[in-house]
Amino acid sequence: MTTNASFTVQEQARRARQAALRLATLTDAQRRRALLTAADAIELRAADILAANALDCQAAHPEVEAGRMSRALFKRLQTSERGVAEMAAHVRGVAALPDPLNRELAVTALDDDLTLYKISCPLGVFAVIFEARPEVLPQIASLALRSGNAVLLKGGSEAEHTNTVLDSVWREAISAFPEIPADAVSLLHTREDVNELLKLDDLIDLVVPRGSQSFVRYIMAHSRIPVLGHGEGICHVYIDRAADPQKAIDIALDSKVQYPAACNAAETVLVHADCAAALLPELAAKFLAAGVEVRACQRTRQLVGDPRLIAATEEDWATEYSDLIIAIKVVDSLDAAIEHINRWGSRHTDTIVTEDATAAAEFMARVDAAGVYHNASTRFSDGFRYGLGAELGIATGKTHARGPVGLEGLTTYKYLLKGNGQTVASYSSGERKFKHRPLK
Amino acid sequence: MTTNASFTVQEQARRARQAALRLATLTDAQRRRALLTAADAIELRAADILAANALDCQAAHPEVEAGRMSRALFKRLQTSERGVAEMAAHVRGVAALPDPLNRELAVTALDDDLTLYKISCPLGVFAVIFEARPEVLPQIASLALRSGNAVLLKGGSEAEHTNTVLDSVWREAISAFPEIPADAVSLLHTREDVNELLKLDDLIDLVVPRGSQSFVRYIMAHSRIPVLGHGEGICHVYIDRAADPQKAIDIALDSKVQYPAACNAAETVLVHADCAAALLPELAAKFLAAGVEVRACQRTRQLVGDPRLIAATEEDWATEYSDLIIAIKVVDSLDAAIEHINRWGSRHTDTIVTEDATAAAEFMARVDAAGVYHNASTRFSDGFRYGLGAELGIATGKTHARGPVGLEGLTTYKYLLKGNGQTVASYSSGERKFKHRPLK
Repeated sequence: MTTNASFTVQEQARRARQAALRLATLTDAQRRRALLTAADAIELRAADILAANALDCQAAHPEVEAGRMSRALFKRLQTSERGVAEMAAHVRGVAALPDPLNRELAVTALDDDLTLYKISCPLGVFAVIFEARPEVLPQIASLALRSGNAVLLKGGSEAEHTNTVLDSVWREAISAFPEIPADAVSLLHTREDVNELLKLDDLIDLVVPRGSQSFVRYIMAHSRIPVLGHGEGICHVYIDRAADPQKAIDIALDSKVQYPAACNAAETVLVHADCAAALLPELAAKFLAAGVEVRACQRTRQLVGDPRLIAATEEDWATEYSDLIIAIKVVDSLDAAIEHINRWGSRHTDTIVTEDATAAAEFMARVDAAGVYHNASTRFSDGFRYGLGAELGIATGKTHARGPVGLEGLTTYKYLLKGNGQTVASYSSGERKFKHRPLK
Repeated sequence: MTTNASFTVQEQARRARQAALRLATLTDAQRRRALLTAADAIELRAADILAANALDCQAAHPEVEAGRMSRALFKRLQTSERGVAEMAAHVRGVAALPDPLNRELAVTALDDDLTLYKISCPLGVFAVIFEARPEVLPQIASLALRSGNAVLLKGGSEAEHTNTVLDSVWREAISAFPEIPADAVSLLHTREDVNELLKLDDLIDLVVPRGSQSFVRYIMAHSRIPVLGHGEGICHVYIDRAADPQKAIDIALDSKVQYPAACNAAETVLVHADCAAALLPELAAKFLAAGVEVRACQRTRQLVGDPRLIAATEEDWATEYSDLIIAIKVVDSLDAAIEHINRWGSRHTDTIVTEDATAAAEFMARVDAAGVYHNASTRFSDGFRYGLGAELGIATGKTHARGPVGLEGLTTYKYLLKGNGQTVASYSSGERKFKHRPLK
């Protein structure tokens, strides 16, 4: 059991804030060393973690049988020896990332002997609410420690045993380092805890809800705390008139079939009218062969002529299937494709397939999304693939952080001003003038 | 009258979003040219602007007499020939700022022929709610255009005539440029409009409420839209044991007296016990001579021995006076000063006066605020003084933007990925491996 179970959420958050003030002053080496120790502890305690996970799976089994828990969720809940080894490896990966703190983002000489430094620093305290997947706890805890933040974690009740053991493994490992406060990571236990947490905008700097769109919107509507989360992932593949047919088919298939439940999977393929006749029959056949249900506009159905194609309605353009279903539409121009995407898309990730550099540049400038690609699958939209090392989540909002968010999303900055006694009065009076010379 | 008065707020916001898609594609030169034209128009139409302002002042006069409007607000409402000239000058200043868009924030080769560009781009649509000050409209409109954003503006009803004329001057000037959509700037007219706006989180990317703390909190509680605003400004001057006495007195006085209503004015001076006896009598005398009410801890009152000093209570540490009132407290150590600031401060701006570099470094690392200064007045915390060119506002939150916020706070980024047909499947299968080579 964690020691924090008896605290109120407010007390937990207050302790987290105190912890954050100390975490912000740790050196890069101190943070890295603790992470490596935590990774070792995860490996050493693998049997305990697996035993706790078996308990959770045992309890979940009748829920699946009774249809109260999806098989997909059950699968995400289960871990294995390999899963535990990967947890440790990810923690080591986060330890190896470059220090996100104390970076000089800008330096300006406001005047002689009056220099302004914009320096990256931790946010303070953030909270993550997630379900199932046991690997999330060490992943988030390591991102938090690497970036000098305290974190409050609320996992799904279905993974309570696993998360409780992971939390205690983490705390024990960290307790070897007296400079690291025990309250750097703490668990919340109930839904009521989450509702309490949402009121604490004076103590918590960011909430990251990882779950359904309606859950994210619920959190946004019920808190003053800034939220980093994502709504829908309605991603598009646009096959331009100047597309290379092989690339077009490869990218469209990969974007849908490679992992259809992912938020960066494509939901709609737009095909330029000039290449529709040449391309659509093969594309539709490949989708059908891959077990994908195809919902198509009338022109597509005419060109393909396969009765298995279902007539698409406007609702299809607005739907995240998260499944082996794809919508296909013929468009008359690049403009029409861009307009469709900006109207129906969710600003997540959209790609153009074309050999025409001008069309690609136009598409990339005008599509309003966190990721805009040229000749690449939408599935690349991911923190690991982007080289961020680890992912806090993917944001479809535009403020603070956008797209796959790694350590940088857990930092803010502070302005340090170093002077020798300057007063504003002497500048207001005109006695002195600002120089504003950028030094970096 | 503006042409948008007959639209619903939702329709206005929808038009603003359409406008934003076009604004995002304008070149640096196009945006600058339009700003210079708008600046000229403000000068050319100075008489109309002043006439409208006179009407607003005339209407406000009885409100002031009846005590329903403060004299301070009335003063902020009034403009002059010089005020109008300054508006134009500020617009030119914004035109002269470096382009905040299309900057390469990072470039990474994910693999051969697969390059990821993180590029700065506009947020989209933001809204600003402000009161009185007629100069705010051209200031915000120019920040919006410089950064390729559309903006919805709601000014105080007391400045309705002035703002309406400024809006029409702006729109007329901009209408000379067919590439700039007319809906790039539009006015809201009523409080109900604001409440409607707060529901439009699908159309509006950021809300900037400029007003009281309770107003900012109201906006945060009633909208899913991210909010950039500031709560209190409880700023501190800490006079360390190793402070240069002259600098200490200059900085403490400037931080309070130079403009006490500003959010970056100091509310509390903390004095190290070791220099309290030597410093406090002169400091208190100077504050009193400047007409400042002094609320002091018991030790301060004993050391100063002036009956005009009022006994401070805990409430004083938590109060933003925004007036010629200062709280003074003796602390026993640097630690105690830092703890006081992190407990009672509002994370706005705090300064240490010391000749001890170690103490300064400790203070700057451990104080959790948007601005942490060494030997400089808290009053430097301002967009113009920081060299940002213009200020959208000061943020005391930690996400997105912190401290004085200029053009950069109106940008986000998008990831552009340029490939030659790559699919994720070939990386998942192990056929290909990511290189993640940073190019910038």
